[in-house]
Amino acid sequence: MGFFIPPPKVYKPAAEVDLGPDSDEHYISPNVKAPRVAGFLVKMLAWVLETPVLGWIVLGVLKRDNLVYKLVSDAEIPEPPLFTATHTWQAAIQEQSVRVTESRLSPAERVQEAVACVPAAAQAQLEPAAGFRRWTVRDFHRAYRSGQATPTMVARRFLAAVEECSGPDLNMGFFISCDPADVLRQAEDSTRRYQQGAPLSAMDGVLVAVKDELDCLPYPTSGGTRWLGSARRCAADAACVAQLRACGAVMAGKANMHELGAGTSGINPHHGATRNPYNVGRVSGGSSGGSAAAVCAGLCPVALGADGGGSVRMPAALCGVVGFKPTAGRLSNSGLLPLNWTVGMPGILAATVEDTLIAYAAIADQSKPSPLQQPELNLPMLTRTRSMPSIRLAKYAKWFDDSSEDIRSLCGKALQMLRTHYGWESVDVTVPEIEEMRLAHYVTMGSECTASLAAKYLDSMDRSEVGWDVRIALSAYGSFSSRDYLSAQRLRCRQMYFHEKIFETADAIVTPMTGVTAYALQDDALSTGELDYINGAALVRYSIAGNFLGLPAITVPVGYDRGGLPVGLQFIGRPWSEATLLHLAYAMQEACGKKVLRKPKVHYDLLTKE
Amino acid sequence: MGFFIPPPKVYKPAAEVDLGPDSDEHYISPNVKAPRVAGFLVKMLAWVLETPVLGWIVLGVLKRDNLVYKLVSDAEIPEPPLFTATHTWQAAIQEQSVRVTESRLSPAERVQEAVACVPAAAQAQLEPAAGFRRWTVRDFHRAYRSGQATPTMVARRFLAAVEECSGPDLNMGFFISCDPADVLRQAEDSTRRYQQGAPLSAMDGVLVAVKDELDCLPYPTSGGTRWLGSARRCAADAACVAQLRACGAVMAGKANMHELGAGTSGINPHHGATRNPYNVGRVSGGSSGGSAAAVCAGLCPVALGADGGGSVRMPAALCGVVGFKPTAGRLSNSGLLPLNWTVGMPGILAATVEDTLIAYAAIADQSKPSPLQQPELNLPMLTRTRSMPSIRLAKYAKWFDDSSEDIRSLCGKALQMLRTHYGWESVDVTVPEIEEMRLAHYVTMGSECTASLAAKYLDSMDRSEVGWDVRIALSAYGSFSSRDYLSAQRLRCRQMYFHEKIFETADAIVTPMTGVTAYALQDDALSTGELDYINGAALVRYSIAGNFLGLPAITVPVGYDRGGLPVGLQFIGRPWSEATLLHLAYAMQEACGKKVLRKPKVHYDLLTKE
Repeated sequence: MGFFIPPPKVYKPAAEVDLGPDSDEHYISPNVKAPRVAGFLVKMLAWVLETPVLGWIVLGVLKRDNLVYKLVSDAEIPEPPLFTATHTWQAAIQEQSVRVTESRLSPAERVQEAVACVPAAAQAQLEPAAGFRRWTVRDFHRAYRSGQATPTMVARRFLAAVEECSGPDLNMGFFISCDPADVLRQAEDSTRRYQQGAPLSAMDGVLVAVKDELDCLPYPTSGGTRWLGSARRCAADAACVAQLRACGAVMAGKANMHELGAGTSGINPHHGATRNPYNVGRVSGGSSGGSAAAVCAGLCPVALGADGGGSVRMPAALCGVVGFKPTAGRLSNSGLLPLNWTVGMPGILAATVEDTLIAYAAIADQSKPSPLQQPELNLPMLTRTRSMPSIRLAKYAKWFDDSSEDIRSLCGKALQMLRTHYGWESVDVTVPEIEEMRLAHYVTMGSECTASLAAKYLDSMDRSEVGWDVRIALSAYGSFSSRDYLSAQRLRCRQMYFHEKIFETADAIVTPMTGVTAYALQDDALSTGELDYINGAALVRYSIAGNFLGLPAITVPVGYDRGGLPVGLQFIGRPWSEATLLHLAYAMQEACGKKVLRKPKVHYDLLTKE
Repeated sequence: MGFFIPPPKVYKPAAEVDLGPDSDEHYISPNVKAPRVAGFLVKMLAWVLETPVLGWIVLGVLKRDNLVYKLVSDAEIPEPPLFTATHTWQAAIQEQSVRVTESRLSPAERVQEAVACVPAAAQAQLEPAAGFRRWTVRDFHRAYRSGQATPTMVARRFLAAVEECSGPDLNMGFFISCDPADVLRQAEDSTRRYQQGAPLSAMDGVLVAVKDELDCLPYPTSGGTRWLGSARRCAADAACVAQLRACGAVMAGKANMHELGAGTSGINPHHGATRNPYNVGRVSGGSSGGSAAAVCAGLCPVALGADGGGSVRMPAALCGVVGFKPTAGRLSNSGLLPLNWTVGMPGILAATVEDTLIAYAAIADQSKPSPLQQPELNLPMLTRTRSMPSIRLAKYAKWFDDSSEDIRSLCGKALQMLRTHYGWESVDVTVPEIEEMRLAHYVTMGSECTASLAAKYLDSMDRSEVGWDVRIALSAYGSFSSRDYLSAQRLRCRQMYFHEKIFETADAIVTPMTGVTAYALQDDALSTGELDYINGAALVRYSIAGNFLGLPAITVPVGYDRGGLPVGLQFIGRPWSEATLLHLAYAMQEACGKKVLRKPKVHYDLLTKE
C-alpha cells in the first residue's frame, strides 16, 4: 500500500529489557482520537469495510492508525513465535495453605473438598446482618437442607424475577433463553433429592446461569447471534456444564452476551443490551455481560462465562462481582463455541470468592490421562489465608494509574489494605509492551475467529443477520495476513518471557480490572451496537495477559466510584497458581469488608422473600 | 475476489477416515498443466506478481488453480490447529537392538559409541574390492592412524579437486565459499593430533561440507543469496558444526544451495547451478544440492544440510547418497538460518548408512536440561540388524506408484528384497490427503519464511539482488492470510492423527524418495532460475510428512534408472525412532549390495591417489 506507514518498531531482545521500576520502557496508552460511533455511522462503516478494494484500503488506514503495522506486522522482533498459551505442569510451583485433591474425585466430591476449605465463620445466617449481601451457594444449600426453602420454590421465584426484569419496564437483557419447564424440572428433581436426604453436593439445587457461548441442553447455543443457534446443533452439555449438573446444580438458562464475543459492551442488538443492575442506564460490560448481571442481581450465586479477552473479568468488575479465569487448560474447553483456539476458555462469575472456589472445584478438568499433563488441583484453605506469609504483589505504577481517578484511588487503597492487614509486600516492576500485547492479542483472536468460523459459517452467512458493530469487527478479523499472525505470536513469546521473569520476583501482578467503570448505554447503540474505542480500550487494558499468556486471573470488587458503580481489582498469577489467587481475592474481600457491599437497583432475594 | 473459485472441500472428521488399503480416500496427484517457465518468462511473471493489485489477482488465480483455496484456505476442517511438529518424549517407544547412550557423553564419545555399533565386516580395506565404493569416515580414520595418509594430504587433494571442478570446464557449483587457508589450518591441526597419537575421535581429520544455511566460521552464511551474508553477521558456529569440530572434523567450506531454500532444483543464479556428478547436464536437486553433490563426488564422506521440505533427502536421492532428517528437535537448530520455525532442521548427507550414524551421533542435541524434554539417544546396533524380528513397513500403493516407471520398479524390488532377505512384513495402508498436506506445508513454510525474514531483511531488500524464481516464490510466500495459515495448521493436526494411527500398525512408512530422477539442467534456467511445477511437485511428493509432522525420515540409494541416474527409497519413522530408521536403511543398503554402486562421472579419490 502506498500510503504513509510509520517506521516499524525494532524490538530489542527480550532478555535485554529492563523489568525494574526505573526501566526506560515507554508506556503507550492507546491513541484516543477515534470518536464514538453508533447508529447510521456504524452502518456506513460496515458497508465501506465490506466493499472490496475500498474496504481493504480503509482497513489499512485503520490498522495503520492503531499502530498495528508499526508495533506488530512490520516490527522487527527477535523472538520466534510462541503459538499457544498452554503451560507445562513443570511450571507449577509449591503453593501455600492448600489442600491437594486426588485426581479421581468426582465433581461432587471436589465440591465437598472446597466447602471444607471455606471458613466456618463465613457460613451464613439467613437474616442479613448489617448491610447488603448476596446469598451464597452455602446459604441456598443450608436453606434447602433445613427445609426453609426448596429448590422448586427458589426456581419459581427465579422464573418470576426473570419474567419481570425481561419485561418492557426493566428490559434488563440478562438471558437469551430460559425454559421455565426445564428449570422447574431440574429444581423438582433437586427438591426430591433433598427430601430424600440425599443431595448430590453443596451445589444441589443451586441456580447457575450459563453464558450462551457454552453448550447447555436443552438450549441451542447462539453465541449471541441470531443464526448460530440453528446453524450449529448443540448435542451435549459443555464439560463444565455437565460437571455442575453432576453436582445437582440447576441450569438456569442461557445468559446474554456480546454477539460472538466480538465486543466488550454487552450491547446485543438481537437479544437486547444487558443493563447494569447498579444503574440500568449503564452497560454491563462483556462479552459475558448476562452472566455478570444475573449474579449481580441476585438471580444466581454462580454463573459460567467464557474469557477470550477479559470477557469474564470485565463484566464482573463492572457489575461488582467476582470473575475468575483459571490457567489455560485447567478447565475443559469442550462444548465452548470455537471462537478461537489459543486465548479463550470458560470462567466463573460469582458473588463471593467462596462460591468462586466451590464452582471452580466442581468444574476443574481432571480428565487428563497423565498427571504430567496438568499439575494437581490445589484448593486454597481460605481458613488460613490470614496466616499466609510473604506474599509479594507486583505493581506497574504507570499502568496501574492509567485508569479513572476513582478507580486509581480505590484500587490503590485496596492494595494498601493488603499491605497493612496482611503484611504483604508490594514490588514495583515494569510490565513492558502492554499496548503491543493488546494489538497482538487482537490480531490473534481475530485471525482465529475468522479461521474457525469462516468455512463452516461466515462464508455462507447472510450478513443482514449480523449486528453492525460485529460486521465491522469481522471485517477487521478477516483482514490479517499470516505475517501479522506470526508477528503477534512472536510478541506472545516476548510477553511470556517478561511475565516469567516478573513472577520470579512476585507471586501475582496487581492491577485495576478496568480503566473505566460501567459507562452510559446510549439509545443510538441499541439496534446497531456501537464502536467506542476509548471506553473499549480502557475496559480491556488489564485483561490481555490472562488470555494471551494463559495466566490465571481473578477480579474482586473493592468499592464504588462516585457514580455508585462498582470497581474491581485484579490479580494475575503464575501458571497453575489458582489457589494463591483465590487466597488473594479472599483476603481482599475480607479486607474490604462485606459491609461495603451496596445493593444494586435491580436485585432479587430468592431465598427469604415469600 | 469475484473470479470463480471451486467449492471448498469439506473434510470429514479425521477419526472417520479409513486408513486401510481399501479406503475410498481419493489420491490427488498434483495438477500438471503448468508449463515449465524459464528465462524471460520468469522475469515477466516476477514483475507481474510484484505489481500491486495486478499481482494479487494473478496470485489469486495461481492459488485457485493449485487448489489452495479449495483444499486449504476455504476448506471446512473439523480439527483445531496443530502449530508445531514437535513431539513429546512420551511418544518414544522401545526400539530393538539399540545402544542407549548416556546424556552426558561428549560428541567425540558419542562418535566412539556409534563406531562400536557398526559391523566390523564393513570396516574397510583400502584396496577397492569389486566395484566402486566411496571412502568412509572409518577409511579416512584408519588411513590417518596408520600414516597411509594425513589430513593435510587429504585436504590438499580436496582443495585441488574443488578448484578443478569449480573451474569453467566442469563448473560443478558444489561450493559457495571455501577458504583454502582455513581448511589447511584445520587439517594441519588434525594431522598434528594424529602424529601425537591423540585424535579427538574417529571423525578427526574427516572433511565435512556445510550447507550455506548453517553458520560455520570463518564464512558468512549466505543462504544461497548474494546479500544475506553481509546483511547478517555470522558470529559463531551452528550447534551441529561446533559438535563436529569438537570431534576434530575439518569444515571443508560452505556448500551451494537453492537460494533461501526456496526451490528444489539446486539451480542458483548467483553461485552457479549445482550439477549432478552422475550427469553434469542434470540437476543435483535442492535445496541442499551442494552438500549432496559433494558427497556424491567423493569430496567428503559426510555433509551437513538442512531440511524444511525434503531439502536434504531429495538431493541425496538424486545424487545417490544417504540423506537423513531426524525427529524434529533431535538436532539443535541453533545457527541455522531462520527460514521458518516449524518445519526445518539440520540433516545429514553421507555416502553410507554407517557414516550417517556416526555423524548423527556426533551432532545429536543432548543439551536439553531435562530427560523429559527429549527421549534418550538410541544408537542402532547395526551389527544386529539382520536379527531384528517383526519389522512392519507400511506402503500406500497409489502414492508409492505415482513415480516414474524406473523408480516404481526399483523401489518395488527393493521393498521385495527387504521382505525376502529379512522376513519383514509389508502392510498396505492409505495415507490420506497427501496433496492437501503438500499445499498446507507450502502455506506454512511460505508464511513463516516471510514473517521471519521480512522485517529484518526483505522489506528493505534490493530486489535486483534476488534471483527471479525466488522473487516469484517470495511473492507467493507473502500472499497468505492468517486464515490460510491457520487452515494449514488444522490440516497438520489431521495428518498427525493419521500418521499416529498408521504407526500403530507399522514401524515405518516406505516410499520412493522422489517421483523423478535428476532432470535436465537447461541453459535458459542458469541465470534466471526456472519454475518447473511438474518436476518440482514430483520431487517433493514424498518429502512433506518428515517436515510438516516432524517425523524422522531417511533415504538410501537402491539403484539407477535407465539413464544411469540414482534412485532413492525412503523410510518415514515414528517420532524418535531414528535407530529403527537407520537399521532399515542399513538393511536396505546391505540387501542392495554395495557392488551395485556406480562411480559418478565426476568423482575424486582423496585417499589412495598420489
